Amino acid sequence: MNKMKLAVGVDIGGTNTVFGLVDEKGNCLAQDSIKTSEYSLVNDFVAAIYKRVNVLISTQNNVEIIGIGIGAPNGNYYTGTIDFAPNLNWNGIVPLAELFKECFNVPVFLTNDANAAAMGERIYGAAKNVKDLVVVTLGTGLGSGFVVNGKLVYGHDGFAGELGHTIVEKNGRLCGCGRKGCLETYASATGIVKTAKEFLANSSDSLLCDVEEITSKSIADAAEKGDELALNIFDFTAEKLGFALANTVAITSPSLIVFFGGLAQSGELIIGPTKKYMELNLLKIFKNKIDIIPSGLNASNSAILGASSLVWQNLN
Amino acid sequence: MNKMKLAVGVDIGGTNTVFGLVDEKGNCLAQDSIKTSEYSLVNDFVAAIYKRVNVLISTQNNVEIIGIGIGAPNGNYYTGTIDFAPNLNWNGIVPLAELFKECFNVPVFLTNDANAAAMGERIYGAAKNVKDLVVVTLGTGLGSGFVVNGKLVYGHDGFAGELGHTIVEKNGRLCGCGRKGCLETYASATGIVKTAKEFLANSSDSLLCDVEEITSKSIADAAEKGDELALNIFDFTAEKLGFALANTVAITSPSLIVFFGGLAQSGELIIGPTKKYMELNLLKIFKNKIDIIPSGLNASNSAILGASSLVWQNLN
Repeated sequence: MNKMKLAVGVDIGGTNTVFGLVDEKGNCLAQDSIKTSEYSLVNDFVAAIYKRVNVLISTQNNVEIIGIGIGAPNGNYYTGTIDFAPNLNWNGIVPLAELFKECFNVPVFLTNDANAAAMGERIYGAAKNVKDLVVVTLGTGLGSGFVVNGKLVYGHDGFAGELGHTIVEKNGRLCGCGRKGCLETYASATGIVKTAKEFLANSSDSLLCDVEEITSKSIADAAEKGDELALNIFDFTAEKLGFALANTVAITSPSLIVFFGGLAQSGELIIGPTKKYMELNLLKIFKNKIDIIPSGLNASNSAILGASSLVWQNLN
Repeated sequence: MNKMKLAVGVDIGGTNTVFGLVDEKGNCLAQDSIKTSEYSLVNDFVAAIYKRVNVLISTQNNVEIIGIGIGAPNGNYYTGTIDFAPNLNWNGIVPLAELFKECFNVPVFLTNDANAAAMGERIYGAAKNVKDLVVVTLGTGLGSGFVVNGKLVYGHDGFAGELGHTIVEKNGRLCGCGRKGCLETYASATGIVKTAKEFLANSSDSLLCDVEEITSKSIADAAEKGDELALNIFDFTAEKLGFALANTVAITSPSLIVFFGGLAQSGELIIGPTKKYMELNLLKIFKNKIDIIPSGLNASNSAILGASSLVWQNLN
């Protein structure tokens, strides 16, 4: 009997690293996690994952691991390295793909988390059979993965897809990158909380006035209840995002835009007004033909699925 | 003896259509032109080109035409059609590739002029062996062709690469497309003349005050002579273009940007300050690694070369 082929998906975050075994249809058969921040040495980190993945494999019957896909902050597809990731313990340039390959002895593919999400949507999720798409990850920051003619856009250096660092407001909000007015200072979990605090400074009439810690979730909850200030916060966020997407569409002309990550879970609250502002700003030839939809991946293991999809994309 | 393989390149403009025979190295062996506007019927237009191309072929010894590449306003690669081109006599959707194929009985590839220029730079010009690049055509308007991983980006509908219609100034200059603040209202031959007229309304101290008809050429001539107002006009234009390019680089991460067309012939006058403003606005990871250079194609037949390059790109 032929062994069932599986991919390992590994998603590295500053706090946790999650990993699992995924079949070609996008079923995550087993998963586990470790605390990234507890490993000061990257070799120990890889060894810990190797050990635990083998435990996962031992729970399955007659399977074969054909490759490993890794999504990591500042992950570079071309070099297989993590380059100067500010939120990880390991400094400089870390040859992570090589280290995994030495342990597992299978092909390893590494990219950043937004690119992995984009490929996940294309292989298993909301964008199956879509050749030209953009996936926007709305988390702490704003990441993006561009797919053109079925392939991820890596750019000449592996760093393409920095939509979060396109400038939408000259002399706008100060960004962590040192510049001003980047999209992610407005359209991200962090950005929308900042907007809420600015709006609340001039208002005492909102459900949010009674919330102890404002988060993108609490803003969404208030908006769901019809809170006008919360709805205005979403509208303000969507205006910046819709404007940036209209400019983006003019460059790569995707048929589909997928929203992914924490803030994307507010669904139509963010998608509805973003689509309105995008359409307002679109060149005529692009109007009324680009969908914006939420992620089609199971939120509980979407990052593992995204990372594992790199294996099927590269080996099939 | 093997016949020498040649491609036919056809560049269709609102006034003139130029065409010629091009070898694989980018030598234009023979060329001719007709007045586009004199043909009210597209069939007569194609028949006229067929006749004249055969005359060109008869001047060559032992050659074989392996395909035809066409650059045309609103040319759609996927459908081979010209769609609603405002400056041509033929209304609606014109199946031009099909009409050429019926006449010549060889493969025909059609796209817009900016995409043809981009492929021309990659196949014969300034971007040989460059896999990720952007070609910006600075003519009456601003066109662009994006190459990602060696291939032109057409987008889902064939209309990708509308950098000229990304908005750089909210509520900026009115554009021919009906929106405001598009890049091409500033960075194009038309845009820079508009800027000159605005600047001249508040100045009497410039060589340009004595020029009867302001053109991008006369502005460049004055700037070459050190005219301060003319230099300020270039600086203003470059600021908009450099800003837009910094946002563009964040999306596709090219290693090279090539300026093509009339305004690009002002060379360092436009390239120098544009590079300065692009660098000022770039995300740190992209700084000091992206070149901007002028077209490497012979200006007298660059459009024919660009169109013909589609043949080698698609058949090789």
